[in-house]
Amino acid sequence: MVTIKDVAKHAGVSVATVSRVLNNNGYVGTETRKNVMAAIEELNYSPNEVARSLYKRGSRLIGLLLPDITNPFFPQLARGVEDEAGRQGFRLLLGNSDEDIEKEMDYIQTFVQNNVVGMITATNHVDYDMYQSLDLPLVLLDRTSSSYPAVYADGREGGRLAAETLIKKGAQRVTLVKGPAHVKPAVDRYRGAMEVLGEADVDFSVMSTTSYAFEEALNWAEELFQKFPETDGIIASNDIVGIAIIHEALKRGKNIPEELQIIGYDDIPQSRLSYPPLTTIRQPAYEMGRKAAELLIQRIGQPQQEHRSIQMPVELIERHTTRKDDQE
Amino acid sequence: MVTIKDVAKHAGVSVATVSRVLNNNGYVGTETRKNVMAAIEELNYSPNEVARSLYKRGSRLIGLLLPDITNPFFPQLARGVEDEAGRQGFRLLLGNSDEDIEKEMDYIQTFVQNNVVGMITATNHVDYDMYQSLDLPLVLLDRTSSSYPAVYADGREGGRLAAETLIKKGAQRVTLVKGPAHVKPAVDRYRGAMEVLGEADVDFSVMSTTSYAFEEALNWAEELFQKFPETDGIIASNDIVGIAIIHEALKRGKNIPEELQIIGYDDIPQSRLSYPPLTTIRQPAYEMGRKAAELLIQRIGQPQQEHRSIQMPVELIERHTTRKDDQE
Repeated sequence: MVTIKDVAKHAGVSVATVSRVLNNNGYVGTETRKNVMAAIEELNYSPNEVARSLYKRGSRLIGLLLPDITNPFFPQLARGVEDEAGRQGFRLLLGNSDEDIEKEMDYIQTFVQNNVVGMITATNHVDYDMYQSLDLPLVLLDRTSSSYPAVYADGREGGRLAAETLIKKGAQRVTLVKGPAHVKPAVDRYRGAMEVLGEADVDFSVMSTTSYAFEEALNWAEELFQKFPETDGIIASNDIVGIAIIHEALKRGKNIPEELQIIGYDDIPQSRLSYPPLTTIRQPAYEMGRKAAELLIQRIGQPQQEHRSIQMPVELIERHTTRKDDQE
Repeated sequence: MVTIKDVAKHAGVSVATVSRVLNNNGYVGTETRKNVMAAIEELNYSPNEVARSLYKRGSRLIGLLLPDITNPFFPQLARGVEDEAGRQGFRLLLGNSDEDIEKEMDYIQTFVQNNVVGMITATNHVDYDMYQSLDLPLVLLDRTSSSYPAVYADGREGGRLAAETLIKKGAQRVTLVKGPAHVKPAVDRYRGAMEVLGEADVDFSVMSTTSYAFEEALNWAEELFQKFPETDGIIASNDIVGIAIIHEALKRGKNIPEELQIIGYDDIPQSRLSYPPLTTIRQPAYEMGRKAAELLIQRIGQPQQEHRSIQMPVELIERHTTRKDDQE
């Protein structure tokens, strides 16, 4: 049987260096790393032996649960988590719950069975018993709860900023698209926007929606113009819905932004590709993911530490679905 | 210590039923399943004990490697893999290689260390040694190779269909956007389109590109109109680039589809949201993912079986960036 000593000898490095490469902790130069990996391959050194030792010492695995991998906001979060975890020598197991509580519980079980050392979740069911019985460091991402540390963007301020922007740019009949009620950040931004609209000298309407799915976005857009044909300013529940609203508005021959202004939420990569490109409130998704990994890894190191949460700022990204100058 | 017997008693079912729920094999009714899960939670039965037994018997984990989680085509593939794997009682570990060979090798190592029973990969480096030394069933997804079974769509036919469609609808000065050379299906569809263009009575140009990244799509679009301002029919390398081309064309005041026709590739969910909505060649991404999981699980059961590959059909999805009738 090939041993770690054989690999070290073959690569011309110490056993400690091979171990560092295998366990991904401590510094190893790129060239050395390559030599060690080459030796592992050439000698056909079995990672299963490594697995057994890892199994004894505890893994370096982190579980990440997303509610909907097809919403482009979440892959951005995931990349942030992945990059920071990788930088610190941790690997990611990714689960997509599809907003399904059974799938969510299945993934949590899979994570635990595979000895993850911590978990990050961006789903909507953290109040379930399953989480409370977990004996693992847990960080919420894009979600908040009094029970767990969390990394999230300032949704209330985001909602305020969206409404303030439309009003400042002269919208008089605003329509606010309210996101799904079970998604906490959607509720936050709804409340923020309502605060501003309630104090402003404009007419406004609220349209409730129940999902962010691509498949339904065009239906929401159509319904919006049927219900509120005279609207001149729309605060979309997110960018997907915002892009669908641009589609429907152009189909109906509306001039954007002269006749109708639209503002989205998230700043997904697609938003700059629409025509006109979508003005939106940016959540720093990648950075949020990075911070969540950082926070989790801190907790893995010091589980007794009091937990803290991190609120990230949002930002107005002005593109061409809002007017350039204030036109009251 | 709580045992599986305690759980069975508490839930009012047999030990065999609890075991089926825990291992996710064999039929268990939804109601029964819920009762068992509730009993597990109430008694705080530790999944780690389950883990130990699973570890002995072999896991039910499948590793899935994607090249770029932010390209909306891949989350669709992943959902197909996930749903079929789940249906058959397998769980997924998902890795995103970000087109980075080191990350890819790291993930493979993580998968092996966590005792996956098989792997599906949609990345571009399957010819590397790392794969050849893997002692695991492997299925390629959206990729092909003579060494492994694969599930892929008919790229050559897709390329042909895109070119035939534009020509049939009267395009006279076609521009073919060639996708990244290291992505095998991009090369297939390029070749298919070239076959048709070479035989047709039209002028055409080829523009080479090196990525599908959202961040660069608008640059490709801009470059295209600088180089080929007179084009009246564009075969985009994929839908992301197609949507960026719509953006750039409208910005330049072109009438779509009267003056300029555009056809994409993939049929990602975003393509119906653009305005005008994008005509495209559909790859059945979700179904491809499902088939890959099916094929892999067959191989896990019968590793000695000769390997086979599955080619899936592509389909023209006519929307509004091509003309309604043939106008020669």
